[in-house]
Formats: sequence, C-alpha cells, structure tokens
Amino acid sequence: MALIVQKFGGTSVGTLERIRAVASHVLDTQAQGHQVAVVVSAMAGETNRLVGLAHELHPIPDSREYDLLIASGEQISVGLVTLAIHAEAERRGLIKRGDIRAVGLLGHQIGIRTDSVFSKARIHAIDSTTLEGHLKLGRIPVIAGFQGVDPDNNITTLGRGGSDTSAVAIAIALQADDCEIYTDVDGIYTTDPRICPRAKKIEKISFEEMMELASGGAKVLQIRSVELAAKYRMPLHVRSSFSPVEGTRVVHQDLLGKALEQVVVAGVAADASQVKFTLKRLKNDSELLAKIFGELSNAAIVVDVIVQDIATDGTMALSFTVGQTDHLKTRDILNKLRDTVLPNVVVEDRAPLAKVSIVGVGMQHHPGVASKMFGLLSAEKIGIELITTSEIKISCLIENARMKDAVNALHRGFGLDA
Amino acid sequence: MALIVQKFGGTSVGTLERIRAVASHVLDTQAQGHQVAVVVSAMAGETNRLVGLAHELHPIPDSREYDLLIASGEQISVGLVTLAIHAEAERRGLIKRGDIRAVGLLGHQIGIRTDSVFSKARIHAIDSTTLEGHLKLGRIPVIAGFQGVDPDNNITTLGRGGSDTSAVAIAIALQADDCEIYTDVDGIYTTDPRICPRAKKIEKISFEEMMELASGGAKVLQIRSVELAAKYRMPLHVRSSFSPVEGTRVVHQDLLGKALEQVVVAGVAADASQVKFTLKRLKNDSELLAKIFGELSNAAIVVDVIVQDIATDGTMALSFTVGQTDHLKTRDILNKLRDTVLPNVVVEDRAPLAKVSIVGVGMQHHPGVASKMFGLLSAEKIGIELITTSEIKISCLIENARMKDAVNALHRGFGLDA
Repeated sequence: MALIVQKFGGTSVGTLERIRAVASHVLDTQAQGHQVAVVVSAMAGETNRLVGLAHELHPIPDSREYDLLIASGEQISVGLVTLAIHAEAERRGLIKRGDIRAVGLLGHQIGIRTDSVFSKARIHAIDSTTLEGHLKLGRIPVIAGFQGVDPDNNITTLGRGGSDTSAVAIAIALQADDCEIYTDVDGIYTTDPRICPRAKKIEKISFEEMMELASGGAKVLQIRSVELAAKYRMPLHVRSSFSPVEGTRVVHQDLLGKALEQVVVAGVAADASQVKFTLKRLKNDSELLAKIFGELSNAAIVVDVIVQDIATDGTMALSFTVGQTDHLKTRDILNKLRDTVLPNVVVEDRAPLAKVSIVGVGMQHHPGVASKMFGLLSAEKIGIELITTSEIKISCLIENARMKDAVNALHRGFGLDA
Repeated sequence: MALIVQKFGGTSVGTLERIRAVASHVLDTQAQGHQVAVVVSAMAGETNRLVGLAHELHPIPDSREYDLLIASGEQISVGLVTLAIHAEAERRGLIKRGDIRAVGLLGHQIGIRTDSVFSKARIHAIDSTTLEGHLKLGRIPVIAGFQGVDPDNNITTLGRGGSDTSAVAIAIALQADDCEIYTDVDGIYTTDPRICPRAKKIEKISFEEMMELASGGAKVLQIRSVELAAKYRMPLHVRSSFSPVEGTRVVHQDLLGKALEQVVVAGVAADASQVKFTLKRLKNDSELLAKIFGELSNAAIVVDVIVQDIATDGTMALSFTVGQTDHLKTRDILNKLRDTVLPNVVVEDRAPLAKVSIVGVGMQHHPGVASKMFGLLSAEKIGIELITTSEIKISCLIENARMKDAVNALHRGFGLDA
C-alpha cells in the first residue's frame, strides 16, 4: 500500500464531466489498496474570470484582497470534487448515502502556513495531523491548492501554478510515496507541441533539467514545485487526466539511465510573456543597483534576465526582464525611483518579447553549444536582444513574433526532431 | 458620529457597476462622519449557480461540503467590494495608491462562531476585536455574510438570506447605532408588488409584524435576522441600493405611532414554495409524533404548519409542510421511518402549494378577522388545504395557481388597496 498525492489542474476539473472522471480515478486508485490525498486547482477559466473582475475594478488591485478573491476558485473545486467522490462512492456501493468518503479542506483548515507575500507566498509549514487523521479513517482529503494563510490568518496565494507547489508540499508533509500531477497533456515534451509539431514526450527527466525547462517557460510544472520536489527528492509523475498512459517521471539525476547523459539538449523551452525594461544614463554605482532591485524584490517582483553595460560617456545602461503580470507594478516603481533617487535616468519598457531556451545536463560537457544556438537563430534571421546562461541552459530574448520559428529551428538543429 | 452596519444583497452587488455604486455609497456615509462596517451577499445568481453545480453532482449533497462550496460566493463579493472601495477612495484623493481604506474579512477571520448544523447554522458568537481594530484606524471592514465556522473550524452557512442575520449579529456585536439592509426594493410593502400592483410601502413596522410577514413568505428579510434584531432591539432600515429614498424602518412596537394600532391587517404575505406531507393510518400515539419530528429536526428540516386529525377507524392522519428545498430530504426520512417504525403507514406529498397569510398587531383586538379571511377566499372559489394561526397572523395553504387571486382579494378585502 502506497500513499499517493494526486493533483488535478484546471482543465482536469474544468467541467462537471471531468470532475466525475477525477472522482472515479481517485476511487480506482484507492481500490488498488492505496491511500490517496487529492489537491485541486480552480476550474479552468475561473481564476482568469476573477482576475479580470479584479482588474476591471482596480488597475493594480491590493494584493491581500486580490488573494482573498481568487482563492475562492480552488474552494469551488474542492466542494465539487468532494461531492463527486461521494456520489461515485455511493454508486459503487462503497458507502451508504450520508456516509463520508471524502472531506474538503481549505488552506486555513489544515494549517498551510505561508509568509505574507501576497500572490507569491511561500509555504513555511503544513500541519499534517488533520490529513493523517482523515487518511487513517479511509477518507480522501480533497485539498485546495494554491492557497494558505499567513501568520495573521490572512489568505495568501502561491502565484500562478501554485497548486503544483501545494501538492508537492503536502506530499512531503505526508511523506507520500508518489506525487502525481494530472494535467491536460500526457507528460513533459522536448518542446511545446503547439509550437513545434515534432515535439516528443520525455520518459524521464532530472529535477534540474525540469527546473531549467520550467524557468525557460515550459508551463506544465511550476518551477518552485520542482525545486521543492528536488530538495526533498519527492518523485513527480506528470501525466494526463484524460488518458491512462504513463507520463513523464521527474526524478533525481542519479535515477536517469546512463544513455541520457549523451543527450546534449533535452528540451527547448519558450516563454512569450516577457517584458524588457531598460534604464539609460544611470550613474555607474552598484549601490543604485542594490536600491533598484531591492525595491523590486520588496514588491515581490521576480526579475529574470539582467544585463548591464557601460556606455562610451561612462554612464551605465541596465536591462532586465520581468513577467507580463508585473509590467505595470514594475513601471510604477521605476518611475517613482526616477523621480527621487535616479534623476535624468531614462526608463524604457518593451513588450511582448519571447525567451527561448535550450536545456540539458549533457550541455556542461559539450563545448560549442552556445555558438551553435546563435548560429541556428542567425540562419533564420532572428535578432537576439539579450542572452543569459546557466550550467545546463542557454536563453535568448527575441522578438515575440519569431518565437515559433526559433523553437522549430532549435528543436531540429539540436537533433530533437529525430 | 454613528456606527452603521450596511448590508448589501445579491442584486446590490450583482454587477461591477453596482459594486462601484456600493463603494461610492459606503464612502459617502463615511464622509458624513460615520464609522461603517459592510456585510455582503454573493453576487446575484452566483449562489444559484453553485447550488446547481452541487445538485448536478449529487442529488442530496453532503451539507458540510455544500457549505464549503457555496460560501465561496460571498468571498468573491468581499474581494470585489473591497477593491472597488480602494479604487474609489483613490479617485477621491482620500488615500494614495497602496494605502488601505477597506479590509475584506471572511467568517473564520473574525470569529463568526456557529453551531454545526450545516446549511442552517446559527451564530453563537462574534469576536468583535478585529473589527473594532480596523474601525478605529478609519478602515471599512467588508465582511462575508451568510458564513461562519463551527467549533471544528468547518465552514458553515446560515441558510438562504443568512446575510441579513450576519449583518444584524455584527451590528449587535459592534453595538452599532443602525443596521441598514440594502436590497433591490425600496422597503417593505403591504404585499408583494409583483403579485398585487396596489401594494404600498410601509413606513414603519414592528419587529413582530415583520417576523410574521417574513414567516408568511415575505422574502425581503430573513425571519431569523428580524428575531435577532427584536431580541436586542437593533433598529433595521430596509432600503434600496438603487435609490436614496427612505425605506421601511423595522422597530420595537413601542416606537410605532398610535394611529397604527387602528390598522387591523398590516400586510399580506405569500409563499409559493411549500410542500405538504401527509401520513395516513398512523397509530394514535404521541411517542410516534415525537419520533417523526425528532428525526426531521435532527436533519435541520424546518417544519411549518402541522395539522393532525383522527380518522373514523381510530387511526391518525398527520399533515405538515416544509420548504421546497427540504422536499427530497424529508421524503427520504419519512420513507425510512415507514420501513422501520411506522409499518403500513401511507406517506404522501403534495407540491407546489402556496401559503397566504394576513398579519397585523391590531388583529388581536378585533374578532372576526379569520372568518372574514375565509369568506374572501371562498368568494373567489379558492379551496383551503390547511389553516394555522398566531396572535397576529392567520395563514391558509392553497393551490399554488390561485395564489395571486388570493393575495389580491385579501389586500382589497382588508382595506390595503386604499
């Protein structure tokens, strides 16, 4: 008997029909002799609907109230999935009407404690007592993903895709054997199949590669959830809620087969929602840099690529990228800084740009990967705005309109089409 | 400076435009020098949407999960109204962007403690500390109506219209000066204007009359909210969120003018959502009655009219009515009893029926009101299925299709058309 955490994303609970299928699947797993805890996202479209309403009322909604508002989406899924499990368990004769087989639980009810960084909160602790109590009674806890409470009992949310992180954190707290992430695709692909039709499903991938793919824009898993899983070596299984086939297992590098080390590039990631900010005529003073990024960090804005250069007149030019959701907030902060501590500095922003990345653990042992990447893009006449690299990833910022061409060229060029 | 609780119903927060109007109104009240606490319902249609989804998944949804599900409707309103107040306060220059003028609060966050009767929970206590703290800082608490938490921190709801009860309970906990109930009509009418076009707005009405009108089917205020207001003599002001005119004040009987004592019938109430159950061939045994109503009470089913009669063969016939929402649950319980402790008993149900009632404190000093009522119905050839009376109310159960005729005849017959 294993203890399995099953997380169902927005499309997996997007309709009542899908919710019934989830209920069926969860009870099937239990029937195989396993204990199951379920984590759910909001129904597909629900979070966007609520976000849209919030922004119609206020251009930059207060993040505490914003979190309180959008956390309701997961609450709805929790109620519906629990009711569907009851109905299916009755239909199968597992329980009589009125008996309890599943219990819906919100963040504050199982002590999912987070910090107070609204909309991007991080989980500090989960009290597993309540969950373990229900599991011991043969009940299926159905838990709201994406949400927690801060030390003052304010409702917090973990950021887009945060339900993955909830699932991993709950799996760790429960010392689960497996954490299954059910989504609308049947695994992790060498690149986004909607962009490149020759993309192929990956059978096994290391935590590190998965993190780089996710930070490069692969939307299947939230990067923080992979970081967390890597830290505690919690194996993930990304699979489709629409099909019974095996998905992609995300595991520790030691568990990858030898053959995989020969692969230089494991995947190509693309992220279209990038904004590039440029500050010109900055004084060449690292204290200013600390000030700028300190203010952005205080506002919980995640800065991605950073590039800095010295102009011929001795002033500094600084460029960096943020996600599109932080566009206005970032501009506000930079304009405020310009009006106070950064006189004469020019603030420019450019959007939408795309980041394309190649990822692979084999890359560190193969020279010339970067130059090959630039060559492939150049052959397509795609200009590169910014470059950033890590040990197992190279990313280029390019024009949004050329993203598809870039991904296909890189996928083919690095032998992933084969 | 007064402390005012303002409760906004589903239509008052039914669209973003209406929510902006609510924000404006709340800030206007504050600008007049008052402290304001706001209680909100779910956006019109939202609760019905969620109830519909629940029933599609399960014919008799588990009430704990049902409450967890539908409580999300008020949560959405809380977030949106708070954001709208922020936006309007910024527009008026009352605060700078990022400052706090309103704070959204859910039941569990301000200690709205209830019993564990899901879907019909009763409030035991409210911890006013958090609310008072915000009010002292000049902030407007925006509170989710309809919801609370039981001693095990399960989410409970107070039943349809429960937000009125939330508002009154919060007004009492805060020792507010006034509790304003904003709705889609501009006050309490002598009867439902949609049924009888000659209905007139009542300026002032006693708590007792209001309770009888509400229990007779007037949907403007939930009866429990009036009971609670009466117990603590919390004055209510029922008014329209669409118009600035004075509404109806619900006050202690001592505060009604002398002239009103001359009015025999203050209003006519009608309630179309009634189900009549009849049990035939019951043994004439009061223990059985205790058993039957005990089971219904355990399931938190509110029984309205009860009539009992002895047949010529010495067996007992028992009829009673419940609300339409309890139809299936009641039938289930009665069938289960028939199969165990009530052999040979016939269980019948009839729906939809309507209850029409006349209400007035003057009634107790005027004989012949009942016979006049029966005469008026008889003249319209409307059959009476059941009769029940209180000191200030007489109710008749009739065919649903004749409800409109009955209300109009009674409104005219008791001089309310004038």
